[in-house]
Amino acid sequence: MKYGIALFPTKKLQDLANSFRMRYDSHYALIPPHITVKEPFEISDDSLPYITSKLRDIAKSSSPVEINVYKVDTFSPQSNTIFFKIKEHETLSELYAKLHQEPFEENTKYKFIPHVTIGQDLSNDEVADVVGRLRMKKIEHHEVIDRMQLLYQLENGSWTVYETYRLGE
Amino acid sequence: MKYGIALFPTKKLQDLANSFRMRYDSHYALIPPHITVKEPFEISDDSLPYITSKLRDIAKSSSPVEINVYKVDTFSPQSNTIFFKIKEHETLSELYAKLHQEPFEENTKYKFIPHVTIGQDLSNDEVADVVGRLRMKKIEHHEVIDRMQLLYQLENGSWTVYETYRLGE
Repeated sequence: MKYGIALFPTKKLQDLANSFRMRYDSHYALIPPHITVKEPFEISDDSLPYITSKLRDIAKSSSPVEINVYKVDTFSPQSNTIFFKIKEHETLSELYAKLHQEPFEENTKYKFIPHVTIGQDLSNDEVADVVGRLRMKKIEHHEVIDRMQLLYQLENGSWTVYETYRLGE
Repeated sequence: MKYGIALFPTKKLQDLANSFRMRYDSHYALIPPHITVKEPFEISDDSLPYITSKLRDIAKSSSPVEINVYKVDTFSPQSNTIFFKIKEHETLSELYAKLHQEPFEENTKYKFIPHVTIGQDLSNDEVADVVGRLRMKKIEHHEVIDRMQLLYQLENGSWTVYETYRLGE
């Protein structure tokens, strides 16, 4: 089954993200606003107990994560995703690192750029237009997230939370 | 903030429910298929730590829940909801009872009829038509659910999981 690991920010930031996502994000109805810390990966039913116990260990040995949203940005031209950009912080990069070492696969494809997606699957012109407007807006938000969630994907593409892990506990 | 407590069944039952919900359920995009064990209620930020510790205690003292889906039914004419009906089982009714006694409010309005909603906000004619057809289908599913989830509602009506509690642990 396909699983992913995400952090959900507070309702306040989720509501703000959704005010953009409802217009710009094709995945709006599939999952609440989130910060992906591990891209979708397969876990077999047999190895699920082992993986979840590893995740419990990782959460326990990690600190709550500092989130500083400071601007709207895009991966364009690599991809047409628009997002709230989050400042790099060691609490977040350390958690990410632990989720990409034994027994998990490394991520050799991308550098980790922490973000909350607010738009995707738009045309190049739409991206330029939306990003151009949103870059003028002052977006500043700080919070500490004290939990991470393991989710699995249903056949319709939506995600259900399987388990919550408290960071530092 | 508005919270609710739900059980998510396995992907298999969620996928089956979604195959109906996509056509018949106005809440299809707001939350994955679930069994509500506590209707939406308010928790203030101040009392959240107390409530979550209570929920941890309740989960620990409860058993994993037996789920037997055995037919499609409707609350019509009281309400136009269509659902997978779940056999009463003491593991489920005991969990429900614990979630409706001190410090939580009693539910004096409804008897607990455990179910997974697959349709709502349909016209009377649609309900009669859909239920008439689905009652002919053989729907049988058994599973044991070993966790419950506390969720909160965003401004757009969708639900985000706040925490998972393992039953019996």
